Amino acid sequence: MCASCPSIFPAPGPKAELEEGSALTPRFGADGLVTCVTTDAATGELLMVAHMNAEALAKTLETGEAWYWSRSRGELWHKGATSGQIQTVVEMRVDCDQDALWLKVNVAGDGGCCHTGRRSCFYRKVETADGKSGLVPV
Amino acid sequence: MCASCPSIFPAPGPKAELEEGSALTPRFGADGLVTCVTTDAATGELLMVAHMNAEALAKTLETGEAWYWSRSRGELWHKGATSGQIQTVVEMRVDCDQDALWLKVNVAGDGGCCHTGRRSCFYRKVETADGKSGLVPV
Repeated sequence: MCASCPSIFPAPGPKAELEEGSALTPRFGADGLVTCVTTDAATGELLMVAHMNAEALAKTLETGEAWYWSRSRGELWHKGATSGQIQTVVEMRVDCDQDALWLKVNVAGDGGCCHTGRRSCFYRKVETADGKSGLVPV
Repeated sequence: MCASCPSIFPAPGPKAELEEGSALTPRFGADGLVTCVTTDAATGELLMVAHMNAEALAKTLETGEAWYWSRSRGELWHKGATSGQIQTVVEMRVDCDQDALWLKVNVAGDGGCCHTGRRSCFYRKVETADGKSGLVPV
């Protein structure tokens, strides 16, 4: 993670400003990350949950394409750079306390998102019977 | 967080099992939490992003109502217990590497979700002009 990243965005102000103000002041966690929820702009389908550091967020705003921070690889991640599944941002929202982002995107390439080849990472539902939970494909 | 919580669910297995298996083996982070995305079961609207520890997840599965771990208060959080905005789980999904959950819920009470009084926590979008980003109500 880049050491200078936190200064890309203004520091969060008091609660009222954070929740009702017009300044984007993301609250990066101790790990320097905010959570990012990404949905399909056309269908509303939940595609993935990922994370952004300040640099990834800045690059997303600058380029209009989704950049994340890959926690597993420990590097900046231009989604689709390898697979062709570039995500073009149609709208970005922030939540009340500015520690989560929501991207509505159009996906290029084959329209996929998950590294397993599926369109969405959420391809299994949890079913509970007799107090035992298991996963079932949807 | 309860010290015995991690043992409520089986430990995650190898990658193939995690991604293709039928066992719910959540990958709780170093903080003992998984990310949870909650949408309105009827409209698909993104309502909130929150976190669950093992106990919260177990209680959600057991009761069919959403329980989270409040990071700000440091306590288990039965959503709606105070406000009446109980979230009844219609479907729960898990993502490929089992570190994120998706709840589709029906919201009781006045149907709200955000502590600011709004229906969704994502009530502002990010707009960028001349290289400067700001927030605009939606």
